[in-house]
Amino acid sequence: MWNKNIETFIGCDAEYEEADIVLFGAPFDSTTSYRPGTRFASKTMRSESFGLETYSPYQDKDMGEIKVFDGGDLELTFGNTRKALDDIKEAAGTIRKDHKIPCMIGGEHLVTLGALEAVIEQYHKLRIIHFDAHTDLREDYLGEKLSHATVIRRAWDLIGDGKIHQFGIRSGERDEFNWAKKHTNLHKFSFEGLEEAIKECENYPVYFTIDLDVLDPSVFPGTGTPEAGGVTFMELLSAILKVSKLNIVGMDVNELSPVYDHSGASTAVACKILRELLLCVG
Amino acid sequence: MWNKNIETFIGCDAEYEEADIVLFGAPFDSTTSYRPGTRFASKTMRSESFGLETYSPYQDKDMGEIKVFDGGDLELTFGNTRKALDDIKEAAGTIRKDHKIPCMIGGEHLVTLGALEAVIEQYHKLRIIHFDAHTDLREDYLGEKLSHATVIRRAWDLIGDGKIHQFGIRSGERDEFNWAKKHTNLHKFSFEGLEEAIKECENYPVYFTIDLDVLDPSVFPGTGTPEAGGVTFMELLSAILKVSKLNIVGMDVNELSPVYDHSGASTAVACKILRELLLCVG
Amino acid sequence: MWNKNIETFIGCDAEYEEADIVLFGAPFDSTTSYRPGTRFASKTMRSESFGLETYSPYQDKDMGEIKVFDGGDLELTFGNTRKALDDIKEAAGTIRKDHKIPCMIGGEHLVTLGALEAVIEQYHKLRIIHFDAHTDLREDYLGEKLSHATVIRRAWDLIGDGKIHQFGIRSGERDEFNWAKKHTNLHKFSFEGLEEAIKECENYPVYFTIDLDVLDPSVFPGTGTPEAGGVTFMELLSAILKVSKLNIVGMDVNELSPVYDHSGASTAVACKILRELLLCVG
Amino acid sequence: MWNKNIETFIGCDAEYEEADIVLFGAPFDSTTSYRPGTRFASKTMRSESFGLETYSPYQDKDMGEIKVFDGGDLELTFGNTRKALDDIKEAAGTIRKDHKIPCMIGGEHLVTLGALEAVIEQYHKLRIIHFDAHTDLREDYLGEKLSHATVIRRAWDLIGDGKIHQFGIRSGERDEFNWAKKHTNLHKFSFEGLEEAIKECENYPVYFTIDLDVLDPSVFPGTGTPEAGGVTFMELLSAILKVSKLNIVGMDVNELSPVYDHSGASTAVACKILRELLLCVG
Amino acid sequence: MWNKNIETFIGCDAEYEEADIVLFGAPFDSTTSYRPGTRFASKTMRSESFGLETYSPYQDKDMGEIKVFDGGDLELTFGNTRKALDDIKEAAGTIRKDHKIPCMIGGEHLVTLGALEAVIEQYHKLRIIHFDAHTDLREDYLGEKLSHATVIRRAWDLIGDGKIHQFGIRSGERDEFNWAKKHTNLHKFSFEGLEEAIKECENYPVYFTIDLDVLDPSVFPGTGTPEAGGVTFMELLSAILKVSKLNIVGMDVNELSPVYDHSGASTAVACKILRELLLCVG
Amino acid sequence: MWNKNIETFIGCDAEYEEADIVLFGAPFDSTTSYRPGTRFASKTMRSESFGLETYSPYQDKDMGEIKVFDGGDLELTFGNTRKALDDIKEAAGTIRKDHKIPCMIGGEHLVTLGALEAVIEQYHKLRIIHFDAHTDLREDYLGEKLSHATVIRRAWDLIGDGKIHQFGIRSGERDEFNWAKKHTNLHKFSFEGLEEAIKECENYPVYFTIDLDVLDPSVFPGTGTPEAGGVTFMELLSAILKVSKLNIVGMDVNELSPVYDHSGASTAVACKILRELLLCVG
Repeated sequence: MWNKNIETFIGCDAEYEEADIVLFGAPFDSTTSYRPGTRFASKTMRSESFGLETYSPYQDKDMGEIKVFDGGDLELTFGNTRKALDDIKEAAGTIRKDHKIPCMIGGEHLVTLGALEAVIEQYHKLRIIHFDAHTDLREDYLGEKLSHATVIRRAWDLIGDGKIHQFGIRSGERDEFNWAKKHTNLHKFSFEGLEEAIKECENYPVYFTIDLDVLDPSVFPGTGTPEAGGVTFMELLSAILKVSKLNIVGMDVNELSPVYDHSGASTAVACKILRELLLCVG
Repeated sequence: MWNKNIETFIGCDAEYEEADIVLFGAPFDSTTSYRPGTRFASKTMRSESFGLETYSPYQDKDMGEIKVFDGGDLELTFGNTRKALDDIKEAAGTIRKDHKIPCMIGGEHLVTLGALEAVIEQYHKLRIIHFDAHTDLREDYLGEKLSHATVIRRAWDLIGDGKIHQFGIRSGERDEFNWAKKHTNLHKFSFEGLEEAIKECENYPVYFTIDLDVLDPSVFPGTGTPEAGGVTFMELLSAILKVSKLNIVGMDVNELSPVYDHSGASTAVACKILRELLLCVG
Repeated sequence: MWNKNIETFIGCDAEYEEADIVLFGAPFDSTTSYRPGTRFASKTMRSESFGLETYSPYQDKDMGEIKVFDGGDLELTFGNTRKALDDIKEAAGTIRKDHKIPCMIGGEHLVTLGALEAVIEQYHKLRIIHFDAHTDLREDYLGEKLSHATVIRRAWDLIGDGKIHQFGIRSGERDEFNWAKKHTNLHKFSFEGLEEAIKECENYPVYFTIDLDVLDPSVFPGTGTPEAGGVTFMELLSAILKVSKLNIVGMDVNELSPVYDHSGASTAVACKILRELLLCVG
Repeated sequence: MWNKNIETFIGCDAEYEEADIVLFGAPFDSTTSYRPGTRFASKTMRSESFGLETYSPYQDKDMGEIKVFDGGDLELTFGNTRKALDDIKEAAGTIRKDHKIPCMIGGEHLVTLGALEAVIEQYHKLRIIHFDAHTDLREDYLGEKLSHATVIRRAWDLIGDGKIHQFGIRSGERDEFNWAKKHTNLHKFSFEGLEEAIKECENYPVYFTIDLDVLDPSVFPGTGTPEAGGVTFMELLSAILKVSKLNIVGMDVNELSPVYDHSGASTAVACKILRELLLCVG
Repeated sequence: MWNKNIETFIGCDAEYEEADIVLFGAPFDSTTSYRPGTRFASKTMRSESFGLETYSPYQDKDMGEIKVFDGGDLELTFGNTRKALDDIKEAAGTIRKDHKIPCMIGGEHLVTLGALEAVIEQYHKLRIIHFDAHTDLREDYLGEKLSHATVIRRAWDLIGDGKIHQFGIRSGERDEFNWAKKHTNLHKFSFEGLEEAIKECENYPVYFTIDLDVLDPSVFPGTGTPEAGGVTFMELLSAILKVSKLNIVGMDVNELSPVYDHSGASTAVACKILRELLLCVG
Repeated sequence: MWNKNIETFIGCDAEYEEADIVLFGAPFDSTTSYRPGTRFASKTMRSESFGLETYSPYQDKDMGEIKVFDGGDLELTFGNTRKALDDIKEAAGTIRKDHKIPCMIGGEHLVTLGALEAVIEQYHKLRIIHFDAHTDLREDYLGEKLSHATVIRRAWDLIGDGKIHQFGIRSGERDEFNWAKKHTNLHKFSFEGLEEAIKECENYPVYFTIDLDVLDPSVFPGTGTPEAGGVTFMELLSAILKVSKLNIVGMDVNELSPVYDHSGASTAVACKILRELLLCVG
């Protein structure tokens, strides 16, 4: 018998019931103020993941050894931010209630908020590990509280002081950097301080959010706001492997914009990062 | 003395006070459900307009003979649709109150709604001439009433049956085409029927809205939703010249997405259409 | 319950059992001598088809009214031409045995041969309608008998003189044009003569093969060998509607190369042609 | 024995001595004021010409039947306009002295002046047939007399009133159009009037210069200044075939800018035009 | 009241009178022998600078704290090199006479010569710090003395032996490298030796010229002549901060070619470098 | 007298008879399973090599000091893998018989097999140095023994255990990595171990094959299968200089795909690597 065409991220062949990790796309970029296109990331990553192998020589581990289900993309309403976040929250909530780890592919970084809202209902003691080029700590952006530029500030609204660990940050307003001194653990430019952060999070559930623009634009030009001076692929991979030892209860990778990735190399990097993330958490 | 760098659309050198037409950009595409990027149209058109001449051999008329002011782009909030429309409404309203013709560069087609809301406050008997590949007549799109796919339906909410004349339409849902039979004057595929429409509008103020995807994608590939089977440049130009004889009280050109215009030819077409529109209305 | 991500061409929601038409991709371009990339056509068309509506105002018909199953892409071996054709033949043969119409998305034009071999086993009196810019009538290409440049010659090997009707042809060697005078019904440049051809095929089963480069490169630049002087979208659509009245027992669309379609407009055209083809045959 | 890699335009296999037409490239675009890149046209056309066949079904003629030599590109100094023109003049002069027809691939349109200066030394009664979107009739451009925007005016300096026939013109300053009324035979927008022009030139040697932007940008987007409203490929081909009946003593094709031709379709058009031109003059 | 559209580099809001630094563009690339397009750098950088923040976490300094005026682009004549240089010289001279620091955005590297000629009239003891991949030390290029490949040699004509410090150089003719041994302080491949150079320049006015192709093409592919083996962004930033301690009396950044920067990442790097340069000198 | 246009890689001006190294292209990518286009590498590299200088400041050596002949591209049949390999074998065999070093520009990596087959006939004790991101050690790929994914396994068929030294490998199936433990000397991720490998090869003839995707995609995005985590340009250059001290009897560089190199920076890197390789071996 012949089945309808199924398309999943490479090696994500599990059924929902048996899966430990549930992958889904959140194709939304309505609040992106500069260059859009992250809405196409999840679709493109599924399609292009077949340029990868299922095996990681870094971890000596194969996608065949883990159980990941790929449920495709949510259908999100462009232009209605709160509704889109609610739909994301509902999806992530369902996954968490079924004792699985949600792994979301953004979309702009704001989508993280929807997933966080769901995860925090189960895990009040949640910590957040945040890799990014940008602070994302504005109170509002042109008057809007829900924005790609405010998402970590909104996360702080939910969990409070000292529980958010930020790495690789190299862009923001002075006020954001100053605000961070009191409220988050912000580490500029690199992963320096990651070991300490991991130690502090050891006994807590952790949400792990990766804005791929933490990578240097030489490695990852295909994003809305490329910021020179970022980390290398090997630095990011190494940092991810360290974080994965924690009790990850939710995670996401964001901000690939295939529209600006004419060579496809940024998409390939994003796929490889996602494979490694799934392999080390799964 | 040296002035700060001023950048206007070619030949739009008038001061606000003396201008008959006021040009401004509405860089907004938050509700675009497929391929975004129209937010960059106005900026790109200003910059690339210098590949044109100020003189039109079609009309034997020069930009130097008309008075157009270019006020630049509005700063619109991505992700808050109603607020963006309000800001557009306010700008267009100011222009109308000063007895000038607003000429807006979108952006997605929804921006037309903001301008229409302002114009209709002055002109209750308004008629609309609408060139487009798409019906834009949905009651809602994924639950949202404010969407690029609903903008002409929202216009109908404002002015009612029989006052909207649509041309070039070749894409939509069956329900939209059926609904149009009772409520608008929809002409499929071409400008057939334009003379009659013009006659019917002769004694009324007219808002003229051009979605540039009415053009065939061979002429205008750089748009979010290219629809084969459109009109040629000369057909569009000829139709614009006819409509310009009416009492135009507001107008716009929309849906250039420079992101998908790698050759720059679509931007050049958009600029030429805008030059001709300004010249024949101005 | 949550299903794995399914991705089909827009509106192709039928299960295999109930389907009248079976869509599948043949991602193969190993013999392409100039610019490759048609291997990505089927995948890209599925993904981008969601920029279309399911409704055709040309035919006043909706994809919801027909039954099409999309089985995804065959896994074909690059570099082994005969094996790839055998795999295509097997797939098309299965579909025909189940009394359904195979509709293949190429790939390079050679893939047609595999499908033809299957169809001709059931239909010895088969006729072929062939739309193309190129003759495809070489006896061999650099010594190879199985090539994109020989596919219609190989078709002639199977069905013989006077049964192949070629339209839109504007490129080839002089020898091919001369050979055609005796063996096929070759119409240069346009669809002139299509009515007569249809009349001649009226009482026969017909295989309908469309090389999309029959379109002018202004409409369809995203192909391996763009040939100026082709037909317009409306001419092609009109010709397809005429051919669809025949007893079509197999069909295909070929030669979209997304690699060269930076604006996406060629992919959009290919999708629209496929939608119209499915709607008029289904 | 093995020869160094030779690369010529397709089918241009003659040695210099036996050739009737001598092809050479003039890779120069230093005065281009808007978008550069035509310097790469000749190189790219040679390379991409192998996507064509040597046979023309339009003329039923093959490159094998004519004698064309391809001498490659001149090495021209960027930034020194007069020197570049002198080098072109010398090359064209040599070819003419050897009783062969120079066929130059530009470059920006100004390169025509160098060739013209050489040809006119032999043919004082020269006429010029000029296909273009732009008038190219300015007296100077930002003070410069040697510019892509002045080239036909400079040609007029050489041959005087009534001897230049311009077609397809749709862009320029009002002053240029007015000036043309007295000094050249300028035909706007199309090839209307070509038959009469040909009749007038029947008994004279003719220099034939084709700015490829005479084509509509849908057909030929890959040029520095795309001007909507141009002619189709078939219209241009047909016009070329007519002009070729005259006594052509020099010719050129200009203004392909491969930098803006991401799909390669413009290059393919330019190659096909050049093949047809060579075949009908050769 | 509504002002005409003003477009400046981000944070360059000062009026001319109050400014310490005057930014202007020199859109000229007529002598570029390989891939052109740097003429578009200044315009594109202004437009894309809004993807940046005004605040630098590297320097803990904000554009709001310094006074920069952006006067837009000079109108330079393509194809007349000396005239273009004269116009640049005049602009830079005016700025220097007003006791402000000219900061020029090229353009090809030759534009530096015009600015240097102006600066040296005020500062006879001038030193030059030069970051580049290329020596730029040819006596002439294809016979031309004014060329992108000769600019530093022409600078030497003006100031003589031992006063030019070159860093990052990794491409040139052997003769240039040999010549440099006697006449300039050329440092191959990196910034090694920068501290000593700074010490030597401590008591002199310094012109600081940055050819952005000193960066590795992984960081900065969007340039005419990408040369592998360059410095990283952080290395360049660090070197700029060091040089900024000197008495800078003129400066420029050159050789971004947006035409080859499809992802926009090179433009983003150029903008960030310019922001940091302005912040540390201002 | 005027010669037909000759186009060689920069500085490869020797006649065949006098040459020490013979350069030729193998434009073949029929077995490429993911993204094709390497067929265009040799042509593009020749054309773009003129953005380089002939002099290397790394080696203080100029192309003028060595004797390289460039014979152009072989005409290979797409779709018939064995025949293509036979043609390559024949060319490489001829060169070896004339006591010259073949230097092949791929194409996909499989082309190496043809050259190896020729070289090994002369040198039974051959060793292979292999730089790559991928193992290329599969026994077959979708049933095919001749594939880009099997090429080093086929090489092993020819020369047996312990004679192949692989570096930079970071992608493959687990089975390939395991198989390599017994049969080749595979070094993951970097050039660690290269000194030892060179010592082991000191007394043997060596074939040196470079898959350019050993480079990090930041440096070299223009390839079919970009694999993050690769080596830098300077690391590769340094490794090549070391290997060049061995007795190289054949060599190749592969896997540039110009189709995915929109900025041209990958092509520039490939050209520079080839220049350095020729200079250090020649």
